[in-house]
Amino acid sequence: MDNFVRRQIDLELGSNSLQPILGFHERIKAWRRETGRILTPYVGDLQDYRFTLKMIEDFAPDAIVHFAEQRSAPYSMIDRDHAVFTQINNVVGTLNLLYALAKLRPDCHLVKLGTMGEYGTPNIDIEEGFIEIQHKGRTDVLPFPKQPGSFYHLSKVHDSNNILFAVNNWKLRATDLNQGVVYGVGTEETDLHPDLATRFDYDGVYGTVLNRFCVEAVLGHPITVYGKGGQTRGMLDVKDTVRCIEIACENPPERGDFKVYNQFTEELNVGELAERVHALRPDSVIQHVPNPRTEKAEHYFKAAHTKLIDLGLKPHLLTDDRIREIFKVVEDNRERAQLALVNPNIDWRQTERQEPLWTDLAGEPRPTTVKD
Amino acid sequence: MDNFVRRQIDLELGSNSLQPILGFHERIKAWRRETGRILTPYVGDLQDYRFTLKMIEDFAPDAIVHFAEQRSAPYSMIDRDHAVFTQINNVVGTLNLLYALAKLRPDCHLVKLGTMGEYGTPNIDIEEGFIEIQHKGRTDVLPFPKQPGSFYHLSKVHDSNNILFAVNNWKLRATDLNQGVVYGVGTEETDLHPDLATRFDYDGVYGTVLNRFCVEAVLGHPITVYGKGGQTRGMLDVKDTVRCIEIACENPPERGDFKVYNQFTEELNVGELAERVHALRPDSVIQHVPNPRTEKAEHYFKAAHTKLIDLGLKPHLLTDDRIREIFKVVEDNRERAQLALVNPNIDWRQTERQEPLWTDLAGEPRPTTVKD
Repeated sequence: MDNFVRRQIDLELGSNSLQPILGFHERIKAWRRETGRILTPYVGDLQDYRFTLKMIEDFAPDAIVHFAEQRSAPYSMIDRDHAVFTQINNVVGTLNLLYALAKLRPDCHLVKLGTMGEYGTPNIDIEEGFIEIQHKGRTDVLPFPKQPGSFYHLSKVHDSNNILFAVNNWKLRATDLNQGVVYGVGTEETDLHPDLATRFDYDGVYGTVLNRFCVEAVLGHPITVYGKGGQTRGMLDVKDTVRCIEIACENPPERGDFKVYNQFTEELNVGELAERVHALRPDSVIQHVPNPRTEKAEHYFKAAHTKLIDLGLKPHLLTDDRIREIFKVVEDNRERAQLALVNPNIDWRQTERQEPLWTDLAGEPRPTTVKD
Repeated sequence: MDNFVRRQIDLELGSNSLQPILGFHERIKAWRRETGRILTPYVGDLQDYRFTLKMIEDFAPDAIVHFAEQRSAPYSMIDRDHAVFTQINNVVGTLNLLYALAKLRPDCHLVKLGTMGEYGTPNIDIEEGFIEIQHKGRTDVLPFPKQPGSFYHLSKVHDSNNILFAVNNWKLRATDLNQGVVYGVGTEETDLHPDLATRFDYDGVYGTVLNRFCVEAVLGHPITVYGKGGQTRGMLDVKDTVRCIEIACENPPERGDFKVYNQFTEELNVGELAERVHALRPDSVIQHVPNPRTEKAEHYFKAAHTKLIDLGLKPHLLTDDRIREIFKVVEDNRERAQLALVNPNIDWRQTERQEPLWTDLAGEPRPTTVKD
């Protein structure tokens, strides 16, 4: 199902996908042509409860993969309206699904995309969803304490909390996939035909870090590292994203059980990623720009991520060849790129939309000093 | 400020305050008459961002006491619409306040009413907002893991998380008062004159446990204990509620600091409360009814609550005289009571409004067996 809000946001931001993507119905037709498989499209908004009920009743799913959330942290930090839109869209859409499942389809397995960003960067090891805490001589296994760093990340924590309660209360089945930062462009499925291509976001609002660095390096824009680049994040190839979702669907929890997996394959550091991209494009320049986010410049980061591997995930780790594949997509779509979009122009510390923090595309790199 | 939504909910539920209360403007006039003090009324909804901005700009507050939330767990569990209303009302109202403060009044101190119900009933001691966790040889102080037990309690956790982020991000000042279950009717201020009386909720949706037991005992209704009555909760006298808010306002945090206090004075057990009420009204009958909520029948409960006492709170502990004072209010307003309202008629396990779980006012007590 789709309500096309992501395409509408492209109109709002003046942004686009670096590689061209067809419409919803055209892609469904292409999928049928290439694979013989029929997908049933539903057009509507999860915020609309009647639509959600009708869809669940009509399709009678055994599993639902829930991607229908506003998924950009910078977008949620543009101003009050974007923060409120993000939290209402995500919380109400998920509540509607939970109620519809409890009412019509309590046996159905909800697979929800979460984010590693829910955890923030605590000074202890991050576990998968829950942690055993020993305190004053007593012990309990409790939800891992979260420290989300944007109104988007907060909305995902709200959803995780709502789902955990609903699973306990109505004896539903749900899996939360706390996904790391995704890179890469194609999957086995989208690679079948160009008509199946998926979005390649490269802008400062929706583009993820490695994809953005590749665009910058290929197109002659400085590689923009936020702050010192000391941020470490769990990351994964988009090919592994789809495999993880498949694994989750193949392993539904019991009724009343909420599984939480940390969905990433390796921990990578933003500064080191910039170096790796630069090494493959020695003509590129690394530029440290003031960090628009409020996050720790350097921090401890170690997160468990064994559950999906135990269930059969074979990680694609980041190779130079994979980076070169991304370069290739950028080169092939060079004429579609709008370089001004790659800069971070949403400042976490402001309450209203500001001029871009840094727009000096042609000039000398700024000094690497960062106020943080 | 008020948007009168609580009075509107009385219309929806067919409920009322046991003691009569005047309108907003009449109470403000009475306050001026009795004390010489002028209160400035604002009529509007915190969900309206323009209203919120105008109010903050016009009044230019040094502190805001934020009570503007839908505050009933059963109300939030009526059905999907009431769950969504509760979460949107509470989350958006609080987001609007945070944005308005960040934009116009970042020095202002936000005092937010939270609830002890955010914590649930973990098998370890509950701390005040944060807990030091030692894990695999490392240590951090992290937000205390929450296990809220209704969509209302979840909305409060969402708010606590949003506030913590906003305080860090914009360097605001905020205090979260995780309040226990309130009992009692009058405060020093409302006792000045009957025109200043505040609500006395006795229904199964908004009435809190001790007040409801007193109504039942005085009016000849069985004292309805949910399940075995093994639930232990932090509780406090409404007189202490207002003193705690005063203490919070007198002790603003530094900019960028989020204080969390557990606001209750003693831990009381529901079954024992029923016994205490019964002992003062020996003609009353205690009746165990199926628990409409999903909560543990018996559990560990020990929660820190020293910070407000360290700041000067002198607790009013629950005495038989205090219970008799509540009896007196019930007797004085006997003719206003609608006894059918005291029964729990919202079942946590249902997704849509049901017939009351238990309406047999005249008959024999049901057996105390509870499925839980």
